[in-house]
Amino acid sequence: MAPEWQVEVWLNTQVPLELSQLRGRVVLLHAFQMLCPGCVSHAVPQAERVHREYAELGVSVVGMHTVFEHHAAMMPEALEAFLHEYRVTHPVGVDVRVAGTPIPATMHRYGMRGTPTLMLIDCAGKLRLQEFGSMDDLRLGMILGQMLAESKDPDCL
Amino acid sequence: MAPEWQVEVWLNTQVPLELSQLRGRVVLLHAFQMLCPGCVSHAVPQAERVHREYAELGVSVVGMHTVFEHHAAMMPEALEAFLHEYRVTHPVGVDVRVAGTPIPATMHRYGMRGTPTLMLIDCAGKLRLQEFGSMDDLRLGMILGQMLAESKDPDCL
Amino acid sequence: MAPEWQVEVWLNTQVPLELSQLRGRVVLLHAFQMLCPGCVSHAVPQAERVHREYAELGVSVVGMHTVFEHHAAMMPEALEAFLHEYRVTHPVGVDVRVAGTPIPATMHRYGMRGTPTLMLIDCAGKLRLQEFGSMDDLRLGMILGQMLAESKDPDCL
Amino acid sequence: MAPEWQVEVWLNTQVPLELSQLRGRVVLLHAFQMLCPGCVSHAVPQAERVHREYAELGVSVVGMHTVFEHHAAMMPEALEAFLHEYRVTHPVGVDVRVAGTPIPATMHRYGMRGTPTLMLIDCAGKLRLQEFGSMDDLRLGMILGQMLAESKDPDCL
Repeated sequence: MAPEWQVEVWLNTQVPLELSQLRGRVVLLHAFQMLCPGCVSHAVPQAERVHREYAELGVSVVGMHTVFEHHAAMMPEALEAFLHEYRVTHPVGVDVRVAGTPIPATMHRYGMRGTPTLMLIDCAGKLRLQEFGSMDDLRLGMILGQMLAESKDPDCL
Repeated sequence: MAPEWQVEVWLNTQVPLELSQLRGRVVLLHAFQMLCPGCVSHAVPQAERVHREYAELGVSVVGMHTVFEHHAAMMPEALEAFLHEYRVTHPVGVDVRVAGTPIPATMHRYGMRGTPTLMLIDCAGKLRLQEFGSMDDLRLGMILGQMLAESKDPDCL
Repeated sequence: MAPEWQVEVWLNTQVPLELSQLRGRVVLLHAFQMLCPGCVSHAVPQAERVHREYAELGVSVVGMHTVFEHHAAMMPEALEAFLHEYRVTHPVGVDVRVAGTPIPATMHRYGMRGTPTLMLIDCAGKLRLQEFGSMDDLRLGMILGQMLAESKDPDCL
Repeated sequence: MAPEWQVEVWLNTQVPLELSQLRGRVVLLHAFQMLCPGCVSHAVPQAERVHREYAELGVSVVGMHTVFEHHAAMMPEALEAFLHEYRVTHPVGVDVRVAGTPIPATMHRYGMRGTPTLMLIDCAGKLRLQEFGSMDDLRLGMILGQMLAESKDPDCL
């Protein structure tokens, strides 16, 4: 089962999100940093496209700002400016800082190796894929399409 | 039901293909011309990527050379050189010329408006999508992924 | 004549740069903000390529961080992290903040309309081009090539 | 000195072109084949952009169809369809076939290794650069800009 995330501050959503409340939906969770070039050029805009085109069909896209370096440069206020300038509209949580380590809580729980990292969680809450680096659109679409088809099975929940 | 194609010459396959023999698989049929810029830059390489990555998972990719202009420049011998230079390895059929009209037979049967045109045919042989122009990878992947999931249903056939 | 810039802090250079000291060289001055998408995807990497390939041939590339919005998110410490992550090695100055206005001093002096803005200054210190938005590589190369040829004229200074 | 080209048929020009008549101008001569992927995706559209944007400023762009393989697929009639479909408007010559060798005459004279090959000839008719493969826009612009500046020197001729 995909572990619950831990979030300090939410942006682009009025209410905090919990993974457990998203059962029945396919969840695309992507971890990023606003100063990570591969996140900015590829992973964040890809996640935003999935959100805009497939939220209504059953995919919940959630960004997780897993800052593990340059903390002073990537405070929530800076992240908010970043999301505004890059027209990011999907919900983004700020991963919880942990005393004594640069690695934030959710990043640690999932055992992520860096950013960007993409996670796909199925309708039953199971972590089906976790991948560090960039994933091409065709492959992401293929996997999401199969997971969406599964999520229509009433036995999923 | 998707109509059967009509082919004069096959390239990249030892035996002629028939749509009826592909029941149980998802079929990506793409119509192109070797001198159509949108086909060369987008549709043909996209189809080739689907072939290389998803043939084993159940997608049959078939190209159809539906020449409706510049016939003398796009004879089968020229097409063969094109497929060689562009490293196209998936099966390609040459659509049957019809006397008295520039539109070849398969193009006419499907009512295609031009090239590139993408058709997706499901495990039961039903034409599920026909689209003129370019389709982005994310959307193509999403639809293929859902169709692949369906094709695992034993009731499909 | 191109006005002198005003800089609070320099990065990627041990000594402060003055425009007047660059007579005889072609100067590519580009104004950017680290959270401006067009700067990050196009203008900053383009300037860096010019620096890496043409500094030895006589082009001095200078970045100017002209923050006029989201000031708290784009402090010098954040800029330093940005330059590190994006592998920017050319000198960058932080434009001087002015009390009572969001527009910094150099941006005001040059009458810039936003970011990115590209300025080309010839061997005699004359501002030959100022353009808001993205410039394609071919055109930039053409203009720089002509200015470099001029700068070999001993009468330039 | 750049050798004169040898041409069987000209397209996109009413009168045959001779290199010797282009003294005083910068000449971009590019050798290509209509079924060479790197030519189609990069070299031909790059040459066309130079033609559209810099012909008036003194650059003459000339394409040379140096067919050395798949001759039957790249006859002048097919080339004409290609130029039409790809919206190529600059003059293109068909290199002269030579009995007993696949290498056409101009290709042989210049000692080209394949396609695409780019040649830059200065205002005095001297071959200044010959390069096999793709050249990036920034570098091409830089060299053309310097050559254009030189060509304004009345001593050039």
